[in-house]
Amino acid sequence: MATVEEVLRLDRVQTGILGLDEFLEGGFVRGSTTLLSGRSGSGKTIFGLQFLCHGITKCDEPGIFVSLETRPKELRREALRFGWDLKALEQDRKLILIDAASNKAGLATSEKFALKRGFDIATLAEAIYEAIQSITAQRVVIDSLSGLSIRYSEPSDVRNAVFTISSLLSELGVTSILIGETNNPLAQSKAGVEQFLTQGLIVLNLAEDETGLTRDLLIWKMLQTSHSLKRHKFKIDDSGISLV
Amino acid sequence: MATVEEVLRLDRVQTGILGLDEFLEGGFVRGSTTLLSGRSGSGKTIFGLQFLCHGITKCDEPGIFVSLETRPKELRREALRFGWDLKALEQDRKLILIDAASNKAGLATSEKFALKRGFDIATLAEAIYEAIQSITAQRVVIDSLSGLSIRYSEPSDVRNAVFTISSLLSELGVTSILIGETNNPLAQSKAGVEQFLTQGLIVLNLAEDETGLTRDLLIWKMLQTSHSLKRHKFKIDDSGISLV
Amino acid sequence: MATVEEVLRLDRVQTGILGLDEFLEGGFVRGSTTLLSGRSGSGKTIFGLQFLCHGITKCDEPGIFVSLETRPKELRREALRFGWDLKALEQDRKLILIDAASNKAGLATSEKFALKRGFDIATLAEAIYEAIQSITAQRVVIDSLSGLSIRYSEPSDVRNAVFTISSLLSELGVTSILIGETNNPLAQSKAGVEQFLTQGLIVLNLAEDETGLTRDLLIWKMLQTSHSLKRHKFKIDDSGISLV
Amino acid sequence: MATVEEVLRLDRVQTGILGLDEFLEGGFVRGSTTLLSGRSGSGKTIFGLQFLCHGITKCDEPGIFVSLETRPKELRREALRFGWDLKALEQDRKLILIDAASNKAGLATSEKFALKRGFDIATLAEAIYEAIQSITAQRVVIDSLSGLSIRYSEPSDVRNAVFTISSLLSELGVTSILIGETNNPLAQSKAGVEQFLTQGLIVLNLAEDETGLTRDLLIWKMLQTSHSLKRHKFKIDDSGISLV
Amino acid sequence: MATVEEVLRLDRVQTGILGLDEFLEGGFVRGSTTLLSGRSGSGKTIFGLQFLCHGITKCDEPGIFVSLETRPKELRREALRFGWDLKALEQDRKLILIDAASNKAGLATSEKFALKRGFDIATLAEAIYEAIQSITAQRVVIDSLSGLSIRYSEPSDVRNAVFTISSLLSELGVTSILIGETNNPLAQSKAGVEQFLTQGLIVLNLAEDETGLTRDLLIWKMLQTSHSLKRHKFKIDDSGISLV
Amino acid sequence: MATVEEVLRLDRVQTGILGLDEFLEGGFVRGSTTLLSGRSGSGKTIFGLQFLCHGITKCDEPGIFVSLETRPKELRREALRFGWDLKALEQDRKLILIDAASNKAGLATSEKFALKRGFDIATLAEAIYEAIQSITAQRVVIDSLSGLSIRYSEPSDVRNAVFTISSLLSELGVTSILIGETNNPLAQSKAGVEQFLTQGLIVLNLAEDETGLTRDLLIWKMLQTSHSLKRHKFKIDDSGISLV
Repeated sequence: MATVEEVLRLDRVQTGILGLDEFLEGGFVRGSTTLLSGRSGSGKTIFGLQFLCHGITKCDEPGIFVSLETRPKELRREALRFGWDLKALEQDRKLILIDAASNKAGLATSEKFALKRGFDIATLAEAIYEAIQSITAQRVVIDSLSGLSIRYSEPSDVRNAVFTISSLLSELGVTSILIGETNNPLAQSKAGVEQFLTQGLIVLNLAEDETGLTRDLLIWKMLQTSHSLKRHKFKIDDSGISLV
Repeated sequence: MATVEEVLRLDRVQTGILGLDEFLEGGFVRGSTTLLSGRSGSGKTIFGLQFLCHGITKCDEPGIFVSLETRPKELRREALRFGWDLKALEQDRKLILIDAASNKAGLATSEKFALKRGFDIATLAEAIYEAIQSITAQRVVIDSLSGLSIRYSEPSDVRNAVFTISSLLSELGVTSILIGETNNPLAQSKAGVEQFLTQGLIVLNLAEDETGLTRDLLIWKMLQTSHSLKRHKFKIDDSGISLV
Repeated sequence: MATVEEVLRLDRVQTGILGLDEFLEGGFVRGSTTLLSGRSGSGKTIFGLQFLCHGITKCDEPGIFVSLETRPKELRREALRFGWDLKALEQDRKLILIDAASNKAGLATSEKFALKRGFDIATLAEAIYEAIQSITAQRVVIDSLSGLSIRYSEPSDVRNAVFTISSLLSELGVTSILIGETNNPLAQSKAGVEQFLTQGLIVLNLAEDETGLTRDLLIWKMLQTSHSLKRHKFKIDDSGISLV
Repeated sequence: MATVEEVLRLDRVQTGILGLDEFLEGGFVRGSTTLLSGRSGSGKTIFGLQFLCHGITKCDEPGIFVSLETRPKELRREALRFGWDLKALEQDRKLILIDAASNKAGLATSEKFALKRGFDIATLAEAIYEAIQSITAQRVVIDSLSGLSIRYSEPSDVRNAVFTISSLLSELGVTSILIGETNNPLAQSKAGVEQFLTQGLIVLNLAEDETGLTRDLLIWKMLQTSHSLKRHKFKIDDSGISLV
Repeated sequence: MATVEEVLRLDRVQTGILGLDEFLEGGFVRGSTTLLSGRSGSGKTIFGLQFLCHGITKCDEPGIFVSLETRPKELRREALRFGWDLKALEQDRKLILIDAASNKAGLATSEKFALKRGFDIATLAEAIYEAIQSITAQRVVIDSLSGLSIRYSEPSDVRNAVFTISSLLSELGVTSILIGETNNPLAQSKAGVEQFLTQGLIVLNLAEDETGLTRDLLIWKMLQTSHSLKRHKFKIDDSGISLV
Repeated sequence: MATVEEVLRLDRVQTGILGLDEFLEGGFVRGSTTLLSGRSGSGKTIFGLQFLCHGITKCDEPGIFVSLETRPKELRREALRFGWDLKALEQDRKLILIDAASNKAGLATSEKFALKRGFDIATLAEAIYEAIQSITAQRVVIDSLSGLSIRYSEPSDVRNAVFTISSLLSELGVTSILIGETNNPLAQSKAGVEQFLTQGLIVLNLAEDETGLTRDLLIWKMLQTSHSLKRHKFKIDDSGISLV
């Protein structure tokens, strides 16, 4: 059993987002699951990729990216824009991209790790489990919850699916980001229930004002962490996301 | 039969939240049930744990925590952050954690007190009843109502479930907190009916403004109590929640 | 047939709320039904109890309280806080509490007047009728409409139920308050139809502002009465509700 | 066939509301149907009674009042408050009250003109037709549309019912007011379709502001009439409604 | 095939609304269909009648008015108010009123052109087709879309009906106005889809402000036209609608 | 496999909208799909036509326009207004208009490329595929998503359809614009899910203010691109859309 001292000396996982860790007592709690929520264009996928690539290259923590609606080819191109060479990381067996998108679109895939059309939560869980085992992964990103075949009209379905995945990831000891979409700028999540089932909640805001769009993030929740409540403006440039 | 004098000399139960009792004529009314409502990240679970730990360590009132969506292991870690050693309290038979989360997630549990997947309100009630008996508990926290298998699309279902639990707890003489989620910052509760069925209603606000997030609480209702109507700002630090 | 003069010399029923009668030409119209609507914590039950206790002790008008979601024991305790000894009034056969709450919660009740689980509007009407006859009651409070097994998703069901009860009470010549819940601070009632079926409508507001909560009431409708249209602030203290 | 000149020399029907006719080119167009819409307490029933009583006593135009949710006894009492002695007008065969309320409430009625529970639009139309014939009525008020057994969840049902009644009344050459309820202060009507099917639309506003409630009316539509677009404040006193 | 020059020298159809054509490069595009949307009382029917009468008397373009909810008799009376003698135009075979209202209301009609109760889109289309042929009509007004038996709860039904009618009218080469209702002052149309299926969209606003109601129109869309984006106030007087 | 250098030297596709490319690092990413969303009258179809005509005449990139609700004849007329002679481009085999509108409206079509009534997503995909092959098209516009027989009440249906089309177009290597309708000025898309499935998202705003309507566009998302976040005002004149 963990003693108080052991627990308080919590192992933190660097987020890789420049400037963010200092507002999280050093990063995510190892083994926790965080919901990363935002509108289209807010930077959720970039955040997820940056979290994994930083983990691999700076912390020697292999990672898994489950892509539910972007095909790996596109993802690799997008990542290269920021200098993250996913293909190289995959060849080094530091990264696994699970392609759950191609088959869903009815397209062929030559990816090594791919899920068939119509997979269920249990199959996804198994695939993640195996991928984690095969490269001793310590980080997982699922992009996005909406790509799962969850009926969003039934909040209880969303609740069950998120709870199951979140519990599994927590059990496996990996530190994870679940990406969620939200359409309403005032909402914390799409179905309004996901955020209650993860240990952390970060919302990326992309807000319309008179002159255009502005970016900032809010840390709504991070268990075991005395986190910032400030609105943190951020930018996306060639090196990815960094707080300004 | 209680005389007027006896009743007016109401036994108050300290909430354990620093600075709150003075706005409640000394605390919760013994035997009452309070709905504690708020958005994700607002501090509801911490409030509940603090209420129980304070009760055990300062008032010698054993307590029960029913965890519907957080596994005991995580809860114990979260509590330790504030210096509350749940494990020790459990070993002293002052606290019982009822694990209603693990089985629901399809995970094994080694907890002594656990509910099986798909339990109903009656089973939950029985488990609470037995736990109360076994350690003569005087405080109960249920975290959260949303974790019950209530169809929130049917307010009458929520009404029945909350009414049944609330009446039972009241009958057993324990002082209880029912934790509720709310997604809409202007709503008192999720289904809009829960708050009419408990004797008290406290809402923890986590509101977005231009510079970030702010925390405060409002006491909307507390029967038999001339309570404050003020907006009370509070902070969460190493010792838990305290009014500022 | 009533002459104009007789009708204009309307018998008024004191509300018992300090300061309110002067804004109602002396009180409620004898034989009328008023919907009393408000959010949780707004003071609806206290208003109802005060109306009955004042009637009994100051006007010698016995009363009936139908409690649909609070058990009589709790109600008696709550009333004592304001110095209203319900038990004594019941023993004097001036007051009858109809317990429609205990059985619904699956709890035993030793109350003399109790309704079984699953009662319908007709049974409720009959119970009220008999209680009125037995003590020649002149005032009735039903707390609350939401406790009836009305499907609030069907406004026509609410309409029928409220219309039936309201007509019956009017026929029996008693002056009544129907308590209604409302969740939306801008709405007059829960289903949006109840207020059209009663002769009066008073809304108790409990509104959130920057510094906390404020209380006031508005008289939206009172037939045969030239009523105030002002917003009346009120307070709840040891003597109950009084306008300030 | 009417010539242009005849039509332009339109016969106007005085509304009886003090100060209103001058904003309507003299009153309602003879033979037209007007929807009178408003929230609970806004004065709709008083407006309707005043329209009929004024017609009978000042213009020698007999009238019909169809009461769908207020029993005739109450209506007569309410009218007397303003000095309108309905009973006397009925005995003079100048007014007929059709009681469509009592049977619906399951109460006996001794009214001469009464509709049975569960009547349909056709039966109502027939009853109105006969009443009109029997006293050569020239004015009709239906209070209210919501009392008809229309499924308001189906706007097409409302549309059909209102269209049928409105066309019949127009065919019979009487000038009519259909009273409608609205819950939303910004809406023109309850289902959002009624106002498109009548020749006129007047909304009685009862609005909440910081100091209380205010009354005014807006004439949204009045065919064949160059009507005012101003917001007209009005008061309700011993003589009924008058513009201020 | 039309050359660029021919097409750019577009034939414009005068709207007949005083002051409007200059903001539309001379009027509607010949052969186009425009959705005219607005709340009750906003002047949609007057706009439609003025468009037809102007076409007949000033441009020698016969017209068809399909009345779905106003009976021809009323329409003729309303038109006379503005000096438009529909009866005379009909006798000159310059105008056809299709009465699709009377039978729907269960009333007899002596109109020459009438549709039976329960007609479908195809029957309506055929009736319009024949009327156009019989007087070589060049303008059509359908008042209103809501009068069609479309289930507005199903946007795809509305889409299909509007698309079919709009395409037919376009195919027949007539210039048309489809009148639509909207209840929400911020919406472009009732179902939110109609406006995407016509070549033009004009919204007549009737807005509530502190002093009463104001009228203006906005041209949201007019294909092949460099139209005004200004808010144009207008008035309705004895000569109909004119921009101010 | 593409090297980092190759990928970073991304081929850009000029949008043809005057002034826009400089805010997109030169244009759309070759092979990407962009959702172009806006209210009725906002200029979506003009944007799409301009994108294709510019591609053909300035970049020698043939294009496909799938018209789901405007018939080719109208589209050609609309285009001519801006000096774009679609007919000539079609004869040069640089442009194919796929007429998916006529048959849907029950009208005959003499178009060479036409889809039958009731076609499904697979048939549409095949038609697009063949058209692309036949003229080696490099640009595709689908106007609009709402014209597909998608049940918009089921966001998951929209998601599947958009995902399938978007993936296919991406696979074929063409650069595409999917036109989407939105009714709510604050929403990114109609169903709230389309924007998550394309690589780019541009919203054309047509907003109502006190003096009329204003036009501007926002680039919410453009993968692999450091795009502008500014609100760009634009105008529509004889040469089409240009930023101001």
